[in-house]
Amino acid sequence: MGLKTALIQLKCSENLPANIERIRAEIRAAAASGARLILLQELHNNHYFCQTEATDHFDLAETVPGPSTEIFSALAAELNIVLLLSLFEKRSSGLYHNTAVVIDCDGSLAGCYRKMHIPDDPGFHEKFYFTAGDLGFNPIQTSVGKLGVLICWDQWFPEAARLMALSGAEILIYPTAIGWDPDDRQTEKKRQLEAWITVQRGHAIANSLPLVAINRCGTEAAADRRNKIDFWGNSFACGAQGEMFVQAGEKDETLLVDIDLEQSEQVRRIWPFLRDRRIDAYDDLLKRFRD
Amino acid sequence: MGLKTALIQLKCSENLPANIERIRAEIRAAAASGARLILLQELHNNHYFCQTEATDHFDLAETVPGPSTEIFSALAAELNIVLLLSLFEKRSSGLYHNTAVVIDCDGSLAGCYRKMHIPDDPGFHEKFYFTAGDLGFNPIQTSVGKLGVLICWDQWFPEAARLMALSGAEILIYPTAIGWDPDDRQTEKKRQLEAWITVQRGHAIANSLPLVAINRCGTEAAADRRNKIDFWGNSFACGAQGEMFVQAGEKDETLLVDIDLEQSEQVRRIWPFLRDRRIDAYDDLLKRFRD
Repeated sequence: MGLKTALIQLKCSENLPANIERIRAEIRAAAASGARLILLQELHNNHYFCQTEATDHFDLAETVPGPSTEIFSALAAELNIVLLLSLFEKRSSGLYHNTAVVIDCDGSLAGCYRKMHIPDDPGFHEKFYFTAGDLGFNPIQTSVGKLGVLICWDQWFPEAARLMALSGAEILIYPTAIGWDPDDRQTEKKRQLEAWITVQRGHAIANSLPLVAINRCGTEAAADRRNKIDFWGNSFACGAQGEMFVQAGEKDETLLVDIDLEQSEQVRRIWPFLRDRRIDAYDDLLKRFRD
Repeated sequence: MGLKTALIQLKCSENLPANIERIRAEIRAAAASGARLILLQELHNNHYFCQTEATDHFDLAETVPGPSTEIFSALAAELNIVLLLSLFEKRSSGLYHNTAVVIDCDGSLAGCYRKMHIPDDPGFHEKFYFTAGDLGFNPIQTSVGKLGVLICWDQWFPEAARLMALSGAEILIYPTAIGWDPDDRQTEKKRQLEAWITVQRGHAIANSLPLVAINRCGTEAAADRRNKIDFWGNSFACGAQGEMFVQAGEKDETLLVDIDLEQSEQVRRIWPFLRDRRIDAYDDLLKRFRD
């Protein structure tokens, strides 16, 4: 018996109370199905507001602890679950982060991770909203295990996963908001979705750790209605050899999966990558470019 | 029109002259098909002798330059091709390496890479034979491009691929000798093969670089006949988003593929990972473990 884990993939509306009610209902259902670790997608309370740069959107931010941690801490304690939240954190006036918060099963705040790699691309103007994290790459200890929580854009950076593994993370977890430009061709969409899955499975393999990614789904129009993103769903969980356990489609879906946190020990005995890292020859990983 | 590349996947015999004749014939055929970059598998001249630890096997080693570079330099110049060799290098008495050698199309030695990460597992006793490389992770400049040549076990280490990318490599190339323990179950075999492909596609994606892996194939018995390895073939080439171009089966096969070295520039404009690396927070990548 592994750790029963739920990945809640949802289409967000622009109505915050409705989103939260929907999430609470899904969490209750997952807990009723036996999930002990329940994971939400990136910035689950709101529409993905980073499609445009608008100062009013800072009104969506909240403190940590704050209103969301209060609501969800109570729920986690009631249901005796460990819960991953993803919040738009207001740390100070003029200082905001994209922050994952883990609530332990007694309702206490187990820890936070502030997104370290911040994207900025057409439709994903995150550098406008979020200061890059300053908490480093540190797993969060909980009653169900040591969680290597990273966020979305981090998933393209092997360095992030490796640092979590080197800190003893037992699982890699990526809440995410990624989707297609509706104008892209089908072949490009397929390449992007496969690349997103593959690079993460690669982190699982390179670090001999199970990995889960929780993505949003559904089409969201930008606040100015000039653009939209088709969030591609496809949340998934894989094992320490990258083997796929479960994968969602493109619609609302809660995935339930048993994850064996003991598998890593066995995999690392046949594939002892940590034994052989050439730390004497990695100095230039700290450089921007070797020119 | 990309760079026409040939991956020569062969079953090795224990007869060195026969192996070399076979390889020369395949190189000639590939060049006749228009290949300008021709890639051989790891330690292509011999049976995979690392299945056992036997001092006699050091007789298989040769200097670089030496007999193999002489033979293959002449062929490269004759055919006007860039050629990747993988040799058991004798650097001194008591000092041997697992070394990739790139010959440019005029027959000159473009450069060497000495395998940096050395495995040692049942059936793969490489730490007995090979001193870990001391040339670092540096691509080799040739007339067809800057080649990020790594070898086999390196393929599990994202650090190696990243350092090549940071040095301006235009393609990642992995000559390999990997296979199954015939006693493993089918499900484990499938996981291992998929993990091997996936982790490398992950490096292609994380670095926005095309990637090729050239593996040996066929069953080889250990010198003491106590064990054997089923080398799994499945050589492949993928693009800068990890998209598969070609993939071999488990038998002898030469893959021909056009690789567009310009694709990286386009992919890096939509996915600018190099822009966002948190080099201020990567220091602990130089640690063995964060304890």
